Amino acid sequence: MRLGVLGTGVVGQSLASGWLSAGHDVMLGSRSRTNEVAVAWAAESGRAASNGTFADAVEHAEVVVNCTPGEVSLSVLNGVDTAAFGNKVVLDVSNPLDFSAGFPPTLSIVNDDSLGEAIQRCLPEARVVKSLNTVTASVMVEPSRLDGRHDLFVAGNDATAKRVVTGLLADLGWDAADVHDLGGIDAARGIEMYLPLWLRLMGTIGGAEFNVHVVRSTAPSG
Amino acid sequence: MRLGVLGTGVVGQSLASGWLSAGHDVMLGSRSRTNEVAVAWAAESGRAASNGTFADAVEHAEVVVNCTPGEVSLSVLNGVDTAAFGNKVVLDVSNPLDFSAGFPPTLSIVNDDSLGEAIQRCLPEARVVKSLNTVTASVMVEPSRLDGRHDLFVAGNDATAKRVVTGLLADLGWDAADVHDLGGIDAARGIEMYLPLWLRLMGTIGGAEFNVHVVRSTAPSG
Repeated sequence: MRLGVLGTGVVGQSLASGWLSAGHDVMLGSRSRTNEVAVAWAAESGRAASNGTFADAVEHAEVVVNCTPGEVSLSVLNGVDTAAFGNKVVLDVSNPLDFSAGFPPTLSIVNDDSLGEAIQRCLPEARVVKSLNTVTASVMVEPSRLDGRHDLFVAGNDATAKRVVTGLLADLGWDAADVHDLGGIDAARGIEMYLPLWLRLMGTIGGAEFNVHVVRSTAPSG
Repeated sequence: MRLGVLGTGVVGQSLASGWLSAGHDVMLGSRSRTNEVAVAWAAESGRAASNGTFADAVEHAEVVVNCTPGEVSLSVLNGVDTAAFGNKVVLDVSNPLDFSAGFPPTLSIVNDDSLGEAIQRCLPEARVVKSLNTVTASVMVEPSRLDGRHDLFVAGNDATAKRVVTGLLADLGWDAADVHDLGGIDAARGIEMYLPLWLRLMGTIGGAEFNVHVVRSTAPSG
């Protein structure tokens, strides 16, 4: 599958390399075609890897993956001709973290709205799916780093798009049984609002390599 | 220990009965001494169980437990003479859920504040600890209902108060190793902001008997 990964940070590079290893054709998109990180990544990563502008990556892609920082995601996406997205699947990995008042950040969109929904409104024909934003980059691409089962969430209005994303997650090692479909893109609220708890846990644990597993009862309810 | 449980809903009754079974002396507090639910509970529950007004329960208690609905918690607590709380431990189990626009609810206090912090400001001498609000009542009092380890969070400014609460959680069956101390009462933001995700999971799972377990890596970081 042809993927366009927007953003050259640790998340973008990790996911781009992870899907490349799984056999996909990946273009890493950034503000310019001469972005040093993206040029170096493409040069090192073989024939199925390339780089270009954000618009190039959207044009290239069957599935677009937004790995830009949440504070700039809407301006990046607005900077690309909306028509170029068509009805493509857009996997949104970003978090609306606002560090303007220091650490810990607050959320810039919260409670009765979410960045996932804002991106869906920005790209009304595209099929936006929120996922992966609840784990650190190394866990995204290698879930077996953690000891025991642990889970991801997906939210989006289009069932087919969520199946495509669940397949891409499987390519990274995520068991479909550990991927919870929480419903429409408005469920991105809950997925994003988990971040303040995640940040506190990171402080307590002393690192970002952790995740949560949803534990249920298998006993018949009494 | 003498506990004052404020609120006669399922959470208040469940916790009151749970701690009674563990050997504590529990007064269930409500708006009036003739509250039918509270009178019946006290009559059925033996000599260590009693009921009274919110003020009676605060007066009685070494540890006060706020199980009133989040939308009324501040008015309930403001209705009791602040001096009666002294520097008592106040375990806050409430969630600031606002159902005024229907389901799913939003949070009435969120992002740069929390109900836990608002309660601490309301009772400046008391030692407020946020916990237990992330699981349904039946799981609060019987964590073994779920299959496998699963976790709770505590937040509060006073370390001794958090130890007292962790002891009370142990009395309900919670292993201290599964209780994450997230820091000061401002960590209540993250603990409360997890609720929208919890509500979505409840819908997906089709019931409230679940919880999350924090999964880490035991391997040395590379």
